[in-house]
Amino acid sequence: MSPLLDEVLAANDRYAASFGDKGDLPMPPGRRFAVLTCMDARLDPAKFAGLAEGDAHVIRNAGGRASDDAIRSLVISYKLLGTREWFVIHHTNCGMEYFTNEIMSGLLAKSLETATLDESGWRDTGEGPGSTAGESIDWLTIRDQQASVVEDVRRIREHPLVPRGIPIHGYIYDVKTGRLIEVPEATEAGRA
Amino acid sequence: MSPLLDEVLAANDRYAASFGDKGDLPMPPGRRFAVLTCMDARLDPAKFAGLAEGDAHVIRNAGGRASDDAIRSLVISYKLLGTREWFVIHHTNCGMEYFTNEIMSGLLAKSLETATLDESGWRDTGEGPGSTAGESIDWLTIRDQQASVVEDVRRIREHPLVPRGIPIHGYIYDVKTGRLIEVPEATEAGRA
Repeated sequence: MSPLLDEVLAANDRYAASFGDKGDLPMPPGRRFAVLTCMDARLDPAKFAGLAEGDAHVIRNAGGRASDDAIRSLVISYKLLGTREWFVIHHTNCGMEYFTNEIMSGLLAKSLETATLDESGWRDTGEGPGSTAGESIDWLTIRDQQASVVEDVRRIREHPLVPRGIPIHGYIYDVKTGRLIEVPEATEAGRA
Repeated sequence: MSPLLDEVLAANDRYAASFGDKGDLPMPPGRRFAVLTCMDARLDPAKFAGLAEGDAHVIRNAGGRASDDAIRSLVISYKLLGTREWFVIHHTNCGMEYFTNEIMSGLLAKSLETATLDESGWRDTGEGPGSTAGESIDWLTIRDQQASVVEDVRRIREHPLVPRGIPIHGYIYDVKTGRLIEVPEATEAGRA
């Protein structure tokens, strides 16, 4: 057993010991909304958006992008579990701004091991094996956070399985301050 | 402005007001691990696994499934941001156990509006429009939680862009108790 696994299970023991009546929560989100945001370790959507257990669906991936899989999740959220409002939240200083599809597939072709970034760019350990399987993947990188939020709100808005009537809010989370900053063009694009 | 948006922004104000020195956290996860789990509103991974801001990547989708998009996120997590251990955590009473691809595409073809589930099955409002776009989507439903955890750990383990050396832990979160329950067959499949 890894030390990390020990730590996670010990933390889980403490959580379960004070679980209270949360075992009675129903499956559909009580506050009837869903948040799509980035996997970034600095983001805690429950804390930054004020969610208790049972309140809202939280969907997260690299970048908080409106991937097909995120849209799969959002459609299930609305169609089967009754959410009524959605948030798309990207954030400042996102890792997705620091590479391109070409950089990523190049790095993976050399080695699967972790690369490091310095002033002269990405540096790889070069320890093999690598794989060219990364060449066929769109890594959904980001050049401009404002633009990516607008693009993703628009992609969701225009999806054939997304109902017209649901408002979609576009925000950027500032990792320096913890604040949500509106992206007005996304708000416009996301209007029901 | 919707009442919900007001509430979320008010909660965010309170969070930002006591943000402390969290603005100094670096981008790479401090505890160097990633969690893939379900979007279910009852799950708070930060709470049930003991995560502070900055600790770990959290990836969430409907079911906590090892979709292509989840694997995109995991590969970025390891290759560019240095995580060293991954968790796949499904949960009891998951919404993904309550439908099939056929049910979902049938419901969506009739109406995009929210359906309800009772003893006789899913019931739709029938308010149009519907869309047949759901027919080409694999909704990644679940028949058996143990089996889905094993399948997803194995899918990640066998992916050409996933390094041999990373341990992948498979667990089920019990929504009645808050406890993480090991899936031994997944642990076996996820061994580095």
